[in-house]
Amino acid sequence: MFNIRTDLAVESREIYREAYKREVPGVDVETEESENCSVTRVKIIDESGEREMGKPKGMYITIDVPKLKNADQDLKDEISQVLAKELKALCKNNENTKTLIVGLGNWNVTPDALGPKVVERVLVTRQYFLAYKKDSDDTVANVSAISPGVMGLTGIETSEIVKGVVEKTKPDLIIAVDALAARRMERVSTTIQISDTGISPGSGIGNKRIGLTKDYLGVPVVAIGVPTVVDAATMVNDTMDLIIGSMKNQAEIGSEFYSVLEQISTEEKYSLIREVLEPFMLNVVVTPKEIDIIIDDLSIIIANGINMALHHGIDLKDVNRYIR
Amino acid sequence: MFNIRTDLAVESREIYREAYKREVPGVDVETEESENCSVTRVKIIDESGEREMGKPKGMYITIDVPKLKNADQDLKDEISQVLAKELKALCKNNENTKTLIVGLGNWNVTPDALGPKVVERVLVTRQYFLAYKKDSDDTVANVSAISPGVMGLTGIETSEIVKGVVEKTKPDLIIAVDALAARRMERVSTTIQISDTGISPGSGIGNKRIGLTKDYLGVPVVAIGVPTVVDAATMVNDTMDLIIGSMKNQAEIGSEFYSVLEQISTEEKYSLIREVLEPFMLNVVVTPKEIDIIIDDLSIIIANGINMALHHGIDLKDVNRYIR
Amino acid sequence: MFNIRTDLAVESREIYREAYKREVPGVDVETEESENCSVTRVKIIDESGEREMGKPKGMYITIDVPKLKNADQDLKDEISQVLAKELKALCKNNENTKTLIVGLGNWNVTPDALGPKVVERVLVTRQYFLAYKKDSDDTVANVSAISPGVMGLTGIETSEIVKGVVEKTKPDLIIAVDALAARRMERVSTTIQISDTGISPGSGIGNKRIGLTKDYLGVPVVAIGVPTVVDAATMVNDTMDLIIGSMKNQAEIGSEFYSVLEQISTEEKYSLIREVLEPFMLNVVVTPKEIDIIIDDLSIIIANGINMALHHGIDLKDVNRYIR
Amino acid sequence: MFNIRTDLAVESREIYREAYKREVPGVDVETEESENCSVTRVKIIDESGEREMGKPKGMYITIDVPKLKNADQDLKDEISQVLAKELKALCKNNENTKTLIVGLGNWNVTPDALGPKVVERVLVTRQYFLAYKKDSDDTVANVSAISPGVMGLTGIETSEIVKGVVEKTKPDLIIAVDALAARRMERVSTTIQISDTGISPGSGIGNKRIGLTKDYLGVPVVAIGVPTVVDAATMVNDTMDLIIGSMKNQAEIGSEFYSVLEQISTEEKYSLIREVLEPFMLNVVVTPKEIDIIIDDLSIIIANGINMALHHGIDLKDVNRYIR
Repeated sequence: MFNIRTDLAVESREIYREAYKREVPGVDVETEESENCSVTRVKIIDESGEREMGKPKGMYITIDVPKLKNADQDLKDEISQVLAKELKALCKNNENTKTLIVGLGNWNVTPDALGPKVVERVLVTRQYFLAYKKDSDDTVANVSAISPGVMGLTGIETSEIVKGVVEKTKPDLIIAVDALAARRMERVSTTIQISDTGISPGSGIGNKRIGLTKDYLGVPVVAIGVPTVVDAATMVNDTMDLIIGSMKNQAEIGSEFYSVLEQISTEEKYSLIREVLEPFMLNVVVTPKEIDIIIDDLSIIIANGINMALHHGIDLKDVNRYIR
Repeated sequence: MFNIRTDLAVESREIYREAYKREVPGVDVETEESENCSVTRVKIIDESGEREMGKPKGMYITIDVPKLKNADQDLKDEISQVLAKELKALCKNNENTKTLIVGLGNWNVTPDALGPKVVERVLVTRQYFLAYKKDSDDTVANVSAISPGVMGLTGIETSEIVKGVVEKTKPDLIIAVDALAARRMERVSTTIQISDTGISPGSGIGNKRIGLTKDYLGVPVVAIGVPTVVDAATMVNDTMDLIIGSMKNQAEIGSEFYSVLEQISTEEKYSLIREVLEPFMLNVVVTPKEIDIIIDDLSIIIANGINMALHHGIDLKDVNRYIR
Repeated sequence: MFNIRTDLAVESREIYREAYKREVPGVDVETEESENCSVTRVKIIDESGEREMGKPKGMYITIDVPKLKNADQDLKDEISQVLAKELKALCKNNENTKTLIVGLGNWNVTPDALGPKVVERVLVTRQYFLAYKKDSDDTVANVSAISPGVMGLTGIETSEIVKGVVEKTKPDLIIAVDALAARRMERVSTTIQISDTGISPGSGIGNKRIGLTKDYLGVPVVAIGVPTVVDAATMVNDTMDLIIGSMKNQAEIGSEFYSVLEQISTEEKYSLIREVLEPFMLNVVVTPKEIDIIIDDLSIIIANGINMALHHGIDLKDVNRYIR
Repeated sequence: MFNIRTDLAVESREIYREAYKREVPGVDVETEESENCSVTRVKIIDESGEREMGKPKGMYITIDVPKLKNADQDLKDEISQVLAKELKALCKNNENTKTLIVGLGNWNVTPDALGPKVVERVLVTRQYFLAYKKDSDDTVANVSAISPGVMGLTGIETSEIVKGVVEKTKPDLIIAVDALAARRMERVSTTIQISDTGISPGSGIGNKRIGLTKDYLGVPVVAIGVPTVVDAATMVNDTMDLIIGSMKNQAEIGSEFYSVLEQISTEEKYSLIREVLEPFMLNVVVTPKEIDIIIDDLSIIIANGINMALHHGIDLKDVNRYIR
């Protein structure tokens, strides 16, 4: 397994295929294309898949929307709807399912604030079920939501806060939303990943040590993630590869250069870059300039998707009415 | 007991004394004056005190700083220090005490955001005690902090979230910070109340039904509160009293008016106002125009006070270095 | 003319009619009702109208939407459209009109931040006309926008900043957006006033001394205003009137009380309240609790209305795509 | 002259010296070291200096504070004081000087928001001089301040807005504050540059085409800038150089690789990287993770420095009292 940092299953697969020129063993892949977006379902089915992908067994669905960054309202609505459909399939929820939405990340660091922003916008209803002592409703399901913050702000492991809340409120399902790091800048804010494996320790932006999994919490955890930064080391690495590629086709100097680089394995090269960058890059993010606006837009798209997936009485026609 | 809404023990006492022209039974009062501030310690000692004050037995300390709104740095530092001293006396903490700070209120409603803002600024250290597996430290104590939000945002009772966190992290002490409603506009943002009785259901701004008490949480709860709004009904009530007062001294019309008003008891009058205002005033706040800046200033003063009270190695000389 | 503070022409008219039981002289009134909103066009036609209304000659259009506070997306879109229609009629603009949008108010004081928020959201295009050296476009008109701040923040008269910008950029039309003070809490965030008289010195929240008028700027100024606060004195005044009203129907005490109050004229009573409140109410606002959210919603509705009124290629179908 | 993007004169000099192994002609350099900071004064004295440095003639003072990112209050105060001293020397202001502070940049893009944040915090007094019709004061000078926004927000050239304000308010001096792009990540938020040459078109973050110079505005312009981002291309470039450096000392593969790279000139290499990165990096920033907090801290340090430099009655003892 490579040490290249990515939270996206499609990128782990890509890295493997670039290196070994074949499909990852222990992994099933299915793709569905439409005009504006493509949906890739990567299923890790056994230990060899886990090992090569560096991710636990389970389903990883990626919704790719190249034009998402400059999307008009129609495209945004379309993505919310695709997200709602895939989410519903993974969550297997019905109108009696009690869901807790967890917004992970640090609200003070813009590219890490996606989770808390979604929590601010999602339709929360549990208080009405309590107030009217109801078990079910004609249009909405029982939904609560919390942004536990990060350890640097609270001094408390995020997973402990969530476990405390789960024990008190006993939801049937958890949906955790997090900002991710991608390998390629093209994926930043154009890809949404949903998975039924929860959140593994060490994923997301920053050194969150949380693990929000069914094992730990006793409740199924579906994770929604969107890459909002790229790792500086992968950016340098990819740029060097592009340069080499562009030189290969040039004069003798290029070919010589290329043959040298050929001798260094992908893994070695990445480690080298990482080592060189580490001392002064530890806390650097590479992020789109207009990240404030992107996070805002994404949080609405995702909150709308969640609202449609969870609340049986909310559909595309009226979903924008419920956004906060 | 009057139905006039106030979270301040000094105001409950004031209302009683205005009506009955004597000290409240079951209550001990002690006052300490200095150049810039006065400290009033109201101790409710028995059931009669509880009944007349409408508040549970315990100590209620009020720090009044008339010039707080336009305070310079020296006065702010002085208040932080007075707060630290009174807080330390109530908390009875030492360098081994593990404290959880709870910031109550809704961060989206400016005058209700005091608690969350203090939590953002206080020095949180529990993560280092965990990381270095230490039990004590030369300069700082073990402090964690959380802003649980309000039920309208999360769908979860605030007290349940706090109890979940308390069960997981086992603090020895809780300090809860909340924005309060006062009866008099003069008290808004010039009074700090500290009490060892925790937070009773129904106090604070908005209809929080939480109770954060030792009984419920199993850990002592010290509450810090600052009024940031006045109740619209009390404002109208007080204005009418002032008008009547000013008319009493005028021509015959005043005296007649006055004698009419005399016939209505204080309680009746307040109920009348409340009833009239209710339909369209339910969600109105009366608050200083520059409330955004006031909340910012207060959160620094209180966070500094808490930092000095909890961390044995932080004193006035360097407290501003630890503020976030 | 009464000294009761209101920025709304419909309220000035209301006050006059309450006092004199007849229509204001020198004023033409026209009303149009629909299911969700009513549009009132008050035209001040001569000096007697100016004197009695305390406002300069011109057209004052009020859009009243009682359900605006809890509006769904359809109602919001409807209001944007009504606003666009009325605005277009007042502005008499076409696709070659160059418009400067001015967002008045202090972005640090939530209820005063409406103007700056609208400016953040409106579709600004002048830079493209400059970059491509074009005079006209198929879908958009030439629009620029500025939030000049308030004198307490900049040390500069707002009107001077605007005049400087007007001299440099030579727009054909100015649309100025401002938060207003209303007399009645019911009007707060449910009423939009448009007028072709610009902004008079002393209107809006806070003591802005600006006058943004055609006289001063040399360009027609259309003003859009929404009340976001009520004056504390008018609130007390109105409450007292309601109390008296409710007492009138009660026992002998009421009738006596009422007859006393009858002897005080409306004007006297208001002055009395103002005098009593002044010392400690100078900087108080009375505002809905959820004002942060209300301002956000209103800024989108108004920005959408402006976008449809100014840009010939933007209509209801796609207006939400252009909002920032 | 190299095409490598930097707004810092010390970096332009560094690049020249790296390439030609000698001091830049037409440039005088003077350095002053103290325990916590070093001050470098680069004076471009003639056309050859202008050409090689790519910057207009004038004085460029750099205050370098390696520990600024984790500074305690004492260090922050020290830097404010050093800044005040250097600023005063460049501005040649006295207690009768009327100063306009201009905060450049986009307040919606965190690393570009330094200028507007400083403007929010600086002590603005011009309104009192107007209100009391005074020409001078015992403790403060006449200061106004404006954040004109960026063309993408307003549709108006920033320089035109500033010129309009200058014509209306007639200041004697302009201080313009801007966020810069640096070549080295180490300089981000640890370096403050002051210069008496104003702001040249194309500097700062983003493609601002403004030029705020004495020539255009008719008033001396002193610029204060702090790098808050690095250019992605320079980051990749520098990383590649570091990698080559670390390989040189290794086995035969390194030496071969190195000799290849030797054949490519610095300039060629940078162009190559830029070309490769351009399509997908156009709007990317590389910035510290905790940039929100850094910008906050820096804006206080700079506002304090400006306050002490401009207001004769404010010194280190009380400067923190005047910060907003």
